[in-house]
Amino acid sequence: MADLHDLSLRARNAFYDLSVAPAEVRNSALLASAAALRSRSEAIFAANAQDVKAAEEENLAAPLLQRLKFGPEKLDQVVRGLEALAKLPDPIGATTLATEITEGLNLYRVTCPIGVIGVIFESRPDALVQIGSLAIKSGNAVLLKGGREALLTNRELASALREALASVSLPEDCVQLLETREDVASMLKEDRLIDLIIPRGSNAFVRYIMDNSRIPVLGHADGLCHVYIDRAADPDMAVRIAVDSKTQNVSVCNAMETLLVHQDIAQSLLPRLADALRDAGVTLRGDPATCELISCDPATKEDWSTEYLDYVLSIRIVPSLEEAIWHINRLGSHHTDAIVTADEEAAKTFLSRVDSSGVYWNVSTRFSDGFVYGFGAEVGIATGKIHARGPMGLEGLTTYKYKLLGSGQTMAEMKRGDRQYTHRPLSSDCPV
Amino acid sequence: MADLHDLSLRARNAFYDLSVAPAEVRNSALLASAAALRSRSEAIFAANAQDVKAAEEENLAAPLLQRLKFGPEKLDQVVRGLEALAKLPDPIGATTLATEITEGLNLYRVTCPIGVIGVIFESRPDALVQIGSLAIKSGNAVLLKGGREALLTNRELASALREALASVSLPEDCVQLLETREDVASMLKEDRLIDLIIPRGSNAFVRYIMDNSRIPVLGHADGLCHVYIDRAADPDMAVRIAVDSKTQNVSVCNAMETLLVHQDIAQSLLPRLADALRDAGVTLRGDPATCELISCDPATKEDWSTEYLDYVLSIRIVPSLEEAIWHINRLGSHHTDAIVTADEEAAKTFLSRVDSSGVYWNVSTRFSDGFVYGFGAEVGIATGKIHARGPMGLEGLTTYKYKLLGSGQTMAEMKRGDRQYTHRPLSSDCPV
Repeated sequence: MADLHDLSLRARNAFYDLSVAPAEVRNSALLASAAALRSRSEAIFAANAQDVKAAEEENLAAPLLQRLKFGPEKLDQVVRGLEALAKLPDPIGATTLATEITEGLNLYRVTCPIGVIGVIFESRPDALVQIGSLAIKSGNAVLLKGGREALLTNRELASALREALASVSLPEDCVQLLETREDVASMLKEDRLIDLIIPRGSNAFVRYIMDNSRIPVLGHADGLCHVYIDRAADPDMAVRIAVDSKTQNVSVCNAMETLLVHQDIAQSLLPRLADALRDAGVTLRGDPATCELISCDPATKEDWSTEYLDYVLSIRIVPSLEEAIWHINRLGSHHTDAIVTADEEAAKTFLSRVDSSGVYWNVSTRFSDGFVYGFGAEVGIATGKIHARGPMGLEGLTTYKYKLLGSGQTMAEMKRGDRQYTHRPLSSDCPV
Repeated sequence: MADLHDLSLRARNAFYDLSVAPAEVRNSALLASAAALRSRSEAIFAANAQDVKAAEEENLAAPLLQRLKFGPEKLDQVVRGLEALAKLPDPIGATTLATEITEGLNLYRVTCPIGVIGVIFESRPDALVQIGSLAIKSGNAVLLKGGREALLTNRELASALREALASVSLPEDCVQLLETREDVASMLKEDRLIDLIIPRGSNAFVRYIMDNSRIPVLGHADGLCHVYIDRAADPDMAVRIAVDSKTQNVSVCNAMETLLVHQDIAQSLLPRLADALRDAGVTLRGDPATCELISCDPATKEDWSTEYLDYVLSIRIVPSLEEAIWHINRLGSHHTDAIVTADEEAAKTFLSRVDSSGVYWNVSTRFSDGFVYGFGAEVGIATGKIHARGPMGLEGLTTYKYKLLGSGQTMAEMKRGDRQYTHRPLSSDCPV
């Protein structure tokens, strides 16, 4: 078992150096990572083959096994990702507020990295490179804990990133790999040294983290997404969006789990929606009104709060737009919810009142993703409202500090009225 | 004892209505609050007189008693604050990112309120109006728990705000008063209904909150601020800033608690600094090198981590700028730290490497404050790095949502390549 206090302390010291490294140096670390991954590819593939073999022997489920595989195609993808990330603008050092407080005293708010971030992620090994590289680009040190099944692959990938950091004279302790659950439990205690924990995983797991640490936690607990078909919906579009939201990929957090249909359109549209969904392999569960219109199993109370991540969908007929909004706000997970309607007023009401990170008009819920949004990549999708919301890219990994540049001003002078507050906006960036 | 689940639920429903109220309506609620406070002034002063009398009988310390008093002058101040707040720009509804994702599919990031916020604050009753009004302006519902000593005053103030909300047809449950510690304990359990807790109080109290809730917590635990006198400091300025940072108000979180002096300037400057601080009534404690240069008590290990909030100061002579930075990052509270120097390079290094919400060059630490920064008022000063840092005004009370406006796009089309990602920046604001 690793000494997590020592490891966190080394991460913190590494962060202090990384945080003041110029953007060119951080970007060269990313390009050096791409080169290191290429030059170590044989070792990475061999380690991954061992991981996959062990997982097969343990009968890991097929979709998980697929995500665990890291071959030449994944490597190409990951390398292209690193090269693209190196080209993105620097997220740190930007002046976002500049105010003259009084004569000769200027306040600047400047973006900067957060510090040391602990990320716990699932079995997909390419996530290690994505998260590690977003951290390096944004000047943060990371402690990474991946899936147990991917351990040998992750060791190789983390070594490549550490070698790349050292090759551009950055501390390799900016990226560190944790290997056991006990390491995670110990990490949660280091609230003096770690600034943020990002857990990716089940609802129960995220709650376990929150209950056992003083460190702030950002992440998503659930993805219980809704599509609401308004009475003014275009029927073709409604079918297209419902089928795509449910079935384009059932095992992801932005897939639809509950379909809400306005009562005025249910009679004409629901049978067609049901046929299209059943054709796509979906099992339907409905409220009593739905069961009268189409043949389906009755939904239980639990269905409205269940993230199936499977070819199952619950359907409810609602009397009004307001009831749809109320259903979503009360039972949803504040992830992504869509309305299908041709009525702009209805869309406006839905988009303002639904309390979710993504509120969509006439588009599939599957678009809720950092790459799709143009953020390059994401560390996770935040369903809380504090700090970051929705897909978290580079911006979510930054904070800011206030730099106040004076010439000897004292509060005593201000209180005496020797000087006056000017609060004049400045157009210049912070000079130091 | 109040039913906190019911109360939180009412706050949540009130939030849904407040969050979509136009800025004019939220601003009229602030002006109506000013009017309600004026028209109820006699009742407020009478309630306050009772609170003050009870506190005197309980021998409340003089500075606390001073802060508890709410007379005509405080009322004027509070009313002027409300009028100024009504004039500030609306913090919600601003489009902060606009991107075309693919043809006919536009993504907008729009600022919005956070939701329901629980604020626990100290004995000063004017804080109730400040926090309540910042919440109304930013579209958030608040549960307020003030100091026990101010209960009768707080009841009157909260009633005035609720009456004002009702007078402009906003739900009065946007502002609710909690009265007991048990209420606070119950509130911490409502993580499905409350989005954020802001505790103002002692370090131990903030940690108690963090340990007992899944709700995100923003606040400050400690204010252990440093002034570092560099070897290139102007001696007059050094004395002025040290005295002001320590003594202008000793009982506040932005007062200096530790003075660091570069060894090259210590011999010439430290005796003068010591005289000036002693003249202002400060008791000095020093490291061994300091005790050789001036007469003072030796500092213990605990002194370097102690927030005195009193006329006491610990002084350490450091061999280098780097050691000063290391001392501050290791032992400070990441609140506000200042360097006094004429050397721009030294200032730049200090400002980049010191990991605090406020990093100051040639100015007193006492300037760390929301009013001073031009934010109108503050809900608190955040020493964490997540969401908000430093003085938290209106911006700290907002989050954002992503609004995605489409015309029937599906992920299946994107994956098939029927449509291409454009990721083109848009110059327009979100139309709905």
